[in-house]
Amino acid sequence: MAETTLPESKMPMVPPRILLGPGPSMVHPRVLQAMMSDMIGYLDPDFMLIMDEVSALLRRVFQTEESLTLALSGTGSAGMEAGLTSLLEPGDTAILCVHGFFSERIFDMAERVGANVVPLRELKKHTDVKLVTAIHAETSTGIKQPLQGLSRLAREHDALFMVDAVTSLGGNEVAVDEWDIDYCYSATQKCLACPPGLSPVALSPRAHEAIKSRKIKPTSWYLDLSLIANYWGFDHVYHHTAPVSMILALREGLRIALEEGLEARFQRHHRNAVALWAGLEALGLDLVAPEEYRLDQITPVWIPEGVDDDEVRRILLREYGIEVGRGLGQFAGKVWRIGMMGESSKAQYVLAVLSALEEILPRLGFEVPYGAGVGAASRSLAGG
Amino acid sequence: MAETTLPESKMPMVPPRILLGPGPSMVHPRVLQAMMSDMIGYLDPDFMLIMDEVSALLRRVFQTEESLTLALSGTGSAGMEAGLTSLLEPGDTAILCVHGFFSERIFDMAERVGANVVPLRELKKHTDVKLVTAIHAETSTGIKQPLQGLSRLAREHDALFMVDAVTSLGGNEVAVDEWDIDYCYSATQKCLACPPGLSPVALSPRAHEAIKSRKIKPTSWYLDLSLIANYWGFDHVYHHTAPVSMILALREGLRIALEEGLEARFQRHHRNAVALWAGLEALGLDLVAPEEYRLDQITPVWIPEGVDDDEVRRILLREYGIEVGRGLGQFAGKVWRIGMMGESSKAQYVLAVLSALEEILPRLGFEVPYGAGVGAASRSLAGG
Repeated sequence: MAETTLPESKMPMVPPRILLGPGPSMVHPRVLQAMMSDMIGYLDPDFMLIMDEVSALLRRVFQTEESLTLALSGTGSAGMEAGLTSLLEPGDTAILCVHGFFSERIFDMAERVGANVVPLRELKKHTDVKLVTAIHAETSTGIKQPLQGLSRLAREHDALFMVDAVTSLGGNEVAVDEWDIDYCYSATQKCLACPPGLSPVALSPRAHEAIKSRKIKPTSWYLDLSLIANYWGFDHVYHHTAPVSMILALREGLRIALEEGLEARFQRHHRNAVALWAGLEALGLDLVAPEEYRLDQITPVWIPEGVDDDEVRRILLREYGIEVGRGLGQFAGKVWRIGMMGESSKAQYVLAVLSALEEILPRLGFEVPYGAGVGAASRSLAGG
Repeated sequence: MAETTLPESKMPMVPPRILLGPGPSMVHPRVLQAMMSDMIGYLDPDFMLIMDEVSALLRRVFQTEESLTLALSGTGSAGMEAGLTSLLEPGDTAILCVHGFFSERIFDMAERVGANVVPLRELKKHTDVKLVTAIHAETSTGIKQPLQGLSRLAREHDALFMVDAVTSLGGNEVAVDEWDIDYCYSATQKCLACPPGLSPVALSPRAHEAIKSRKIKPTSWYLDLSLIANYWGFDHVYHHTAPVSMILALREGLRIALEEGLEARFQRHHRNAVALWAGLEALGLDLVAPEEYRLDQITPVWIPEGVDDDEVRRILLREYGIEVGRGLGQFAGKVWRIGMMGESSKAQYVLAVLSALEEILPRLGFEVPYGAGVGAASRSLAGG
C-alpha cells in the first residue's frame, strides 16, 4: 500500500465549551481522570469487583434494592432498544403514554421488533397488554411526566412498566422500587456528568423472569438483556467485550453524585432551573412547558418572532463558547433548548447564557431590557 | 430517600496489567490522554471536523477510497450485528464461510433477524444468496482466513461480501477496495490500541445502495446503518448521541497507527508473533493453528496434559500481572490464547510471558527446559 504522510488535523484540540444543550453536559474532572486509568481485562477478577461496585452504586441512584442494575454498552437509545427487543415479542401490545420526539423513537423501535404499539387513549380496547412505556423527562418538550398513575395502570393490566429516565436520573428523583418500574434506562452524559457511551439500566425480578420465559429470542443479540444480565450478574459469563474505560468513568460519576447526595443534587438542579426560568421570562421570552410539568434539566424556550435560530446559536457558540440545543421534530427552528444537567447545572452558567442572550438578541432585532435577565436570575439564586 | 455514607471501594485503582489476552490490549498513553479532552457537543461544527478526520483516517486503515467509513457506538459485536440487521431481510440467505466461536455468533444474530444462514459447503444448493460472510481472524482458533477467493465467490453469486476484521485491522493487511469487501467491521481494543467501545466499519457504495433499497426496516434502530451513515455522512443528521470521548480516543489511535506506518506495524506484529511461537515450541508446547494459517495477533496453545488451566492463569495474573486468554467454546479448558496486539505486541512482553511460563509450568508438574523459551524468542527477535 502507498504510505503518505499524515495530514495536519483541522481541529487538533477540542475547543472549550459551556455545554448547555440536551447533552453531553460538562464532564466532572474526576471522571475524565478515571478514564485515564490503565486498561484491564473485561473478565479480570479485579475488574469484576469494579463492575459489582458500579451495580451497587446504580442501585442507590435508581433507588432500588430488588432490581438488577448494570450499564449497557451503548447510549441511551441502546437502553431503549434493549428494553423493547428484550421485553416484547412479535405481536405483543405495548402502550405508549407520552407524546414527543422520543416517544416516536420508541414507536419506531417497537414496530421493528414486531410489536403492536398503541397510544394510551386506546388502552381500553386492549385486554392483553404486555408493556406500558413512558418517558419521564421528554427533552423535546421540556415536560416531566408524573409516573405513579401510569405505574398503577400498568399493574391493573398486569403489564410490565418501562420508563425512559435518560434525562432525569441523577437530576430528579427516579424511585424504581417505590414506583414499581420494571425496566428503567438512562444515559451517562446528562445528569451523571460522564461522557456519552453507556446506558445504565435497572431490571426488576419480574421483568427478568419475563425475559427468561420468552418463546423466541429477541431480535437483537447485542442488546439481549438476558445475555447481558449473565455478564453483569453473579456468573460473569462472557457476552461482549465491556467498554472498560467508560465503566470506570461511570463509577466515578456515580460516586460523585452520591457524595453530593441525591436530594442535594436534585435541589441544585431545581434551584438553577428556577433561576434560568426567571431570567428568561424577565427578558420577555416564553417557555414551552407549563410550570406545573416543567423539567429542571432542560428548558425549551420559544424563539422570538423574526429572530434567526441558527444565527443566535452560531453567535453563542463562536463568540461565547456556549452550546444550547436546537428544537427537535415539530419544534425545529421554533425553540431553543437550554440544558442544565450534572456539571452543567451551575449558577455561573445560568448567568453566562442569560448575559449572552441580553447582548445577542438586540443585535438581531429583538429588544430586551438589558440586565433584567441576569438580575432576575441572581435574585432567584439569592432567594432560593 | 435514605442517604447513607458511601462505602469504601474494594478496588479504588485499576491494578497494572500486561494484557496478553484476546483484547482489550494495552492502550497507548496518547490515546488515554486524548480521552481526557473537554467534552463537546455531538453536533458541534468543530466536532464534525473531528468526525470527518476520523472517517478519513479510517479510509486509510481500511485501505479504501470508495467506502463510507465510520465508528459505530458499540463494540465489535455491535459491528457484526449492524451488518447483519442492515444487510439482511427476513428470508434472505447468508453464507457463513468459517467455523469457530465467532461464526456461531454470526449464525445466532442472523437467525434473530430472520435470515437463513447456511454453511459454505451448501452454497451450490442456493441460487439466491444475499450475503457471504467470513471472519478474517478467528481468535478462538488462531486461524487467519484468506479472503480473496471468498470475495470472488461472493461476486460470482452477486452477493454482498461481509468481513469480520475485529482482530486483524491495524495488525494485518485489510484491503477493503482490493478485496471487494462490501461491509467490514472491526473493534478499537485490539490492534488499534484504544479502549473497547467502538466498532470502526467500512461500507461500500454497493452495500449502501442495498441498504437504501430494503423493503422493510432493519430489526434494529440503534444499529441501522442507513441512519448511522446519515449522521457520519455529509448531512450529519442526528441519530443518537455519539460517544465523544471514545471517538477522540480512536482518532489518536488511528493517527498513531498511521505515523508508525501500516506496513511497519504489520511487520512488528509478525516479528513478535514469530518470536512467541519459537519460544512456546522451545518449551515443548504445541500450537493449535497450522503455521500456514496462523494469526499474528493471537496464538492459541494447547495446555499440557495434567496442568491446571485456571491455576496457571491465576498465577500469571496474581504473581506476574499478566493476563492471557482462556479457551472459548470447544476449546474451553484446553488452550490458552496469548494475544500480541497493538501496544501489547512488544518484544518485552514476548519475553515476559515466556519467562513466567518457564517458572510456573515446572511448579505445576510440567517440566520445561529452563531458559529455552526466552532463548529461542530472543534469537528469533535478533534474526528477524
